[in-house]
Amino acid sequence: MKKILVTGGLGFIGSHTVVELQNEGFEVVIIDDLSNTTLTVLDSITDITGIKPTFHKADVRIKSDIKAVFDAHDIDGVIHFAAFKAVGESIAKPLDYYENNLSSLIYILQEIRDRKLDNFIFSSSATVYGEPNHLPITENAPVKKAESVYGNTKKIGEEIIRDASKAYNINAIALRYFNPIGAHASAKIGELPLGVPQNLIPFVTQTAAGIREQLSVFGDDYPTEDGTAIRDYIHVVDLAKAHIAALKRLINKNNKESFEFFNIGTGKGTSVLEVINTFEKVNDLKLNYKIVGRRDGDVMSCYADTTIANKELNWKTEIGLDEALRSAWQWQQKQSV
Amino acid sequence: MKKILVTGGLGFIGSHTVVELQNEGFEVVIIDDLSNTTLTVLDSITDITGIKPTFHKADVRIKSDIKAVFDAHDIDGVIHFAAFKAVGESIAKPLDYYENNLSSLIYILQEIRDRKLDNFIFSSSATVYGEPNHLPITENAPVKKAESVYGNTKKIGEEIIRDASKAYNINAIALRYFNPIGAHASAKIGELPLGVPQNLIPFVTQTAAGIREQLSVFGDDYPTEDGTAIRDYIHVVDLAKAHIAALKRLINKNNKESFEFFNIGTGKGTSVLEVINTFEKVNDLKLNYKIVGRRDGDVMSCYADTTIANKELNWKTEIGLDEALRSAWQWQQKQSV
Repeated sequence: MKKILVTGGLGFIGSHTVVELQNEGFEVVIIDDLSNTTLTVLDSITDITGIKPTFHKADVRIKSDIKAVFDAHDIDGVIHFAAFKAVGESIAKPLDYYENNLSSLIYILQEIRDRKLDNFIFSSSATVYGEPNHLPITENAPVKKAESVYGNTKKIGEEIIRDASKAYNINAIALRYFNPIGAHASAKIGELPLGVPQNLIPFVTQTAAGIREQLSVFGDDYPTEDGTAIRDYIHVVDLAKAHIAALKRLINKNNKESFEFFNIGTGKGTSVLEVINTFEKVNDLKLNYKIVGRRDGDVMSCYADTTIANKELNWKTEIGLDEALRSAWQWQQKQSV
Repeated sequence: MKKILVTGGLGFIGSHTVVELQNEGFEVVIIDDLSNTTLTVLDSITDITGIKPTFHKADVRIKSDIKAVFDAHDIDGVIHFAAFKAVGESIAKPLDYYENNLSSLIYILQEIRDRKLDNFIFSSSATVYGEPNHLPITENAPVKKAESVYGNTKKIGEEIIRDASKAYNINAIALRYFNPIGAHASAKIGELPLGVPQNLIPFVTQTAAGIREQLSVFGDDYPTEDGTAIRDYIHVVDLAKAHIAALKRLINKNNKESFEFFNIGTGKGTSVLEVINTFEKVNDLKLNYKIVGRRDGDVMSCYADTTIANKELNWKTEIGLDEALRSAWQWQQKQSV
């Protein structure tokens, strides 16, 4: 049984991926510093899968914390989620983002190098494409100077992995996420932002629940059909399964490129207003929202060409927007109880 | 009297800059981990200037080491030299370079942020331009994905400073060095590579001194006049003086841009064979050299347009190639004694 280290394993994407890993028979060791989640997520994972993952409360910015976890386990692969992820905050607090997102990556890769390990998966982001020249975005699109510090840490992260992969022969995959939304069908795990949500869907569900008075739509003057920004919203369970597919590819590789990167999205672009309308329809409620100015660091339109990921990873999305927005609302309602 | 913290202050460029700082009446605090220099440089600086700088042996990769130095002094400005700098080694050891060159920068900027300090000067490099589209290179030339990890750490370093400068209002200048050579006229300080030199001039002088059997010229098949690569060789004392000019600009600023960057070179391109021929001529000796293949990470031709730096910094180079190569050889001969 392969033992997989998952950093940030109690976060939104991390927790869903841990569930899928355990469902597929992997043994999971989680590192999380609980800075943006709670320990109850560990119990929820255990409820869903019947297996309690090993958990270490550790700060990935601290080299000795990371080393101690590698000392304690024979790790067969690493999925590195732990990172700060709020676009707006990253512009206001760049040094926190550069430190947290880069140091952690460097220290983990150093352990992988020193122990001659392999099979590294990195949470990258579609933001590495910046404002794309062509849509949908293929993996061959140029990576640009990111519009936010958050995006820049992902771009730099990929460069560090590429260089490390080449120098030390580490087998690695970066998954460039589009916009993960939704929650597990059990409604036991989901997105759990501490404080004011930075992403659209949790703000939508919190507004619907009455926790937020009003949803702000950032910009309706983009040159899109309804003027609002377009994103590729992918159900988090579909996204989690992409990690299983990538992990299997790494483990079973046979003369493959040692560093690869894939778009993880649905291939379909949806505007903010379409999200709001769909959310209202499938959940039979009305949202209080207003149009406000554009937000620093946001691009107009961003959705994936998933041809390469679908083929090479033998993976595709299975859950649609309706179901994603239903599950998000179910999850939110459980929080409010 | 302004107190300036100089990281890597016992290195090649650092030590020459400390001398010029002291000559200009600044009080200097040096951090150096002695990984690529020796403590005797501190005595040499003291010999030249008559003033012993404060010295802390500290590792800039360790946050608490940096914090302790800031705790111990009221710092008015920082010149951050401390970094790994060998192009070839950076490709073989990328994680060492990313960790050392980025963590140190982030931690120092965090101290500057937390203490509301100002006046930060960063050792950047002409390598951020990659293979340039036009020569001479102006500051408006695009910054590219660097050909080496070393170069990438400088490019990323500038991005971190730009973002931090904007978010925290830190007044900063990056100096993009071309190729520093030569030694102080006293021959008391100079380039002191531990191990096999990675740069041309110390390899030249060590070959002349009989320490190295033969000088390797990396590539004579570049599309240049004599086929060897072209660089902009600047005397290290001229380079050191650019830091004084930049520091004065920062201290005296009045509604200036809070992050600026300048080319620090002579404006003149010189081929490797021209360097060898000039070295032989001015020092009246013969060098044993051979042509070998190109070296990973090297670009063909790189020399500065210094118009902006000359004007804005009110600074220009004063020492020519002949004198630079004479001083380098004088310095080398003192090492051999």
